[in-house]
Amino acid sequence: MRNQSFLLFLAFSVCTTAIAQNNDSIQFKKIANDIFTNSTAYENLRFLCKQVGPRLSGSPQAEKSVKETYRMMKEMGADTVYLQECMVPHWVRGAKESAFLTNTFGQRIALNICALGNSVGTGKTGIKAEVIEVRSFKELEELGVKEVKGKIVFYNFPMNPTNVETFRSYGEAGQFRGRGPAMASKFGAIGVMVRSLASNIDDYPHTGATNYNDSFPKIPAIAVSTRHAELVSNELKKKKGLQLFFKTECAMLPDVKSYNVIGEIRGTEFPDEIITVGGHLDSWDLAEGAHDDGAGCIQSMEVIRVYKQLGIKPKRTIRVVMFMNEENGLRGGRKYAEVATTENNKKFIFALESDAGGFTPRAFGFTAEETVLNKLRNWVPLFKPYGVYEFSAGGGGADIGPLKPLGTVLCGLRPDSQRYFDHHHAANDTFEWVNKRELELGAINMVLLLYIVDQYGL
Amino acid sequence: MRNQSFLLFLAFSVCTTAIAQNNDSIQFKKIANDIFTNSTAYENLRFLCKQVGPRLSGSPQAEKSVKETYRMMKEMGADTVYLQECMVPHWVRGAKESAFLTNTFGQRIALNICALGNSVGTGKTGIKAEVIEVRSFKELEELGVKEVKGKIVFYNFPMNPTNVETFRSYGEAGQFRGRGPAMASKFGAIGVMVRSLASNIDDYPHTGATNYNDSFPKIPAIAVSTRHAELVSNELKKKKGLQLFFKTECAMLPDVKSYNVIGEIRGTEFPDEIITVGGHLDSWDLAEGAHDDGAGCIQSMEVIRVYKQLGIKPKRTIRVVMFMNEENGLRGGRKYAEVATTENNKKFIFALESDAGGFTPRAFGFTAEETVLNKLRNWVPLFKPYGVYEFSAGGGGADIGPLKPLGTVLCGLRPDSQRYFDHHHAANDTFEWVNKRELELGAINMVLLLYIVDQYGL
Repeated sequence: MRNQSFLLFLAFSVCTTAIAQNNDSIQFKKIANDIFTNSTAYENLRFLCKQVGPRLSGSPQAEKSVKETYRMMKEMGADTVYLQECMVPHWVRGAKESAFLTNTFGQRIALNICALGNSVGTGKTGIKAEVIEVRSFKELEELGVKEVKGKIVFYNFPMNPTNVETFRSYGEAGQFRGRGPAMASKFGAIGVMVRSLASNIDDYPHTGATNYNDSFPKIPAIAVSTRHAELVSNELKKKKGLQLFFKTECAMLPDVKSYNVIGEIRGTEFPDEIITVGGHLDSWDLAEGAHDDGAGCIQSMEVIRVYKQLGIKPKRTIRVVMFMNEENGLRGGRKYAEVATTENNKKFIFALESDAGGFTPRAFGFTAEETVLNKLRNWVPLFKPYGVYEFSAGGGGADIGPLKPLGTVLCGLRPDSQRYFDHHHAANDTFEWVNKRELELGAINMVLLLYIVDQYGL
Repeated sequence: MRNQSFLLFLAFSVCTTAIAQNNDSIQFKKIANDIFTNSTAYENLRFLCKQVGPRLSGSPQAEKSVKETYRMMKEMGADTVYLQECMVPHWVRGAKESAFLTNTFGQRIALNICALGNSVGTGKTGIKAEVIEVRSFKELEELGVKEVKGKIVFYNFPMNPTNVETFRSYGEAGQFRGRGPAMASKFGAIGVMVRSLASNIDDYPHTGATNYNDSFPKIPAIAVSTRHAELVSNELKKKKGLQLFFKTECAMLPDVKSYNVIGEIRGTEFPDEIITVGGHLDSWDLAEGAHDDGAGCIQSMEVIRVYKQLGIKPKRTIRVVMFMNEENGLRGGRKYAEVATTENNKKFIFALESDAGGFTPRAFGFTAEETVLNKLRNWVPLFKPYGVYEFSAGGGGADIGPLKPLGTVLCGLRPDSQRYFDHHHAANDTFEWVNKRELELGAINMVLLLYIVDQYGL
């Protein structure tokens, strides 16, 4: 191309981009206004939290949540809504759990605890043994079988308060919940108590899945509230060798049948290019699963409602997925990818997940090639008025992760993370702690991103 | 300057700036880590909310808050703490307020209401009259004396949900609380009921100051919860001419003596250059004033604690001010500027205010010359890891506003605004709704900004 024609071409490109962005900015405003004014997200979340409630995989409430989100997407006018069968683990907490520490004076101090998800129970009689505190796996290894055998290991690793991103601290501390029981069993421990993964000091124990290692016996494992973790630690500073008792009657039952719930708006130009958006429908059994992840489910649906309301017809097919069993198995996410692999005529170009709470959105994180990410970044200025300032490298989500081998661009909504771990997996993850405008602002940004990806491809 | 030497100079400048920014980034991390780990902000706020409580100007609690924040700054090691006397209005709410609407069937529907701040009361007998709903001053004017005289005007203007910045909607709707009673009086109304300035629908009435116009009689004015504003509006749709009763026994008493509380760290190089930072100590009488503005007060003090803790000695003098009477008179802010005007040897170079809630910080807004703002913007990249992405034009705060004639650069912390107006001036502005990490992150960014201004001047 000659220099002059190149300059003309460049000027033309800049102009058309500017015009496109201006039109998009008008469309963005329409979408945002409609969501702030007419969204059913908040009331649907209320329903999911209050009328369905805790919905761990395999529970009657999980079954009810399948039915109710199917209904919601139907009512929103999805072109089609269907169920995708998957077998899920069926873990139950059983009878009331309890624990106490016997202190220096022989007094029993009741502790706020809960069994870790997927844990085996102690049975009705419970277990009692000397409790031994560690703050790292290294410390555990140094103690070795000699010091650990027959005891209860207490992992007391607080979430690091100095990381601005609380998910980073969650990742660092999370290994003790995930691998701690298996590691302690390796050294002959008979039980494990983990400090709750919470960024605040309060009285709620926070559950979450643990993963046993088949090479070692499965030993019962509980989480203790952060306040009581401090208490136990202080008591142990006064005197080593204190006895801890705990009783849990949880159990893993045989797998049961469950479903992902999928709602679609069919693409008008490229119906075989699939844009996936979703959150997970299951929640822990202790709370309403408001932030984790009722919010993500309800935000994901909002694209159906607002597209139908405003008469927006996507070029590509948008699939809204309520994933089942993220919390203690990821079976729904895996099943979705497995089925996707067999749909040879379809191309899974993009997947967006919301599973970090219904808080004010701040960024999107992408697992994508640099060129794709840079292309997307051209649109960031249009997102700024809605509070999203950054499209960062890295991100996605547990449920959409299995799509990666298909070459799908993965993306996760990144809301402000300061409050999340006060509620995560605990009894205070309730509807009251979700703010309507924050929830909607997350939904707005999600729909805006889907709109751009649908309009311009990747 | 010759071309080559200019380039050398440029390279040198870039390098020294880079080195300075690198050192600052290390200092930033030290400050942030210390606040996240050792801050007393959250516990001090708890004390202010729970042990002092609502602290409207002139109340015993306001007096107590003066004493307690004086103590806190002393304990933090301020070089000096002192009181700055100012006379403040003394408005009292009086006995229990009540209101009811008589509906179509003659049934009395009790309404959740509260008197507007500075309002006159109805007296023990209350007032009863036909209620007439308007949504604008234009509508009121069109009705005129003929339709308004002897009636109670109900301003039912909801906060616009489509503004992402809720303060914008507050500004638009706020005129009815501020000028509504005076305007209605002009047309002969005997009372006013204003829809609460809240972004959600709930049962809390939100108070706030109204400003009478001396040309017209002062008539009693109340705010009604948003849910009941909707209710009254719906009843009036069914039948016009319904009767509203309300009773308030509030009154404005003579002015009383009160104080701004000022804590200082003396500058080592330029002690006469004053950097002011503050929030307002008074709060409405209905709640604990946690977000408004306990948070801002406590965040402001944090600069003293962290500087002393880390041994940072400011070049300039940092003055932390607890302003009295922002809510219903602004006497403290005016007094501070008035005294500043007389301190001829001092230069009030910069003032930072936090009065938008203890939520996650997102930006700072500046009232400054373009060149100054652009200089400050060089530091934005260092703030991004702490969640502040923007130094925007425009901003400051009510209490520091009176410093403007002195040429002071004014700045306001801009936290995320989605939740603020669910709590603002209502009984649910309580400590429980402040998140520790969000409060601290606000304090961190405030200290970082003060650090930059102190180190490099303006």
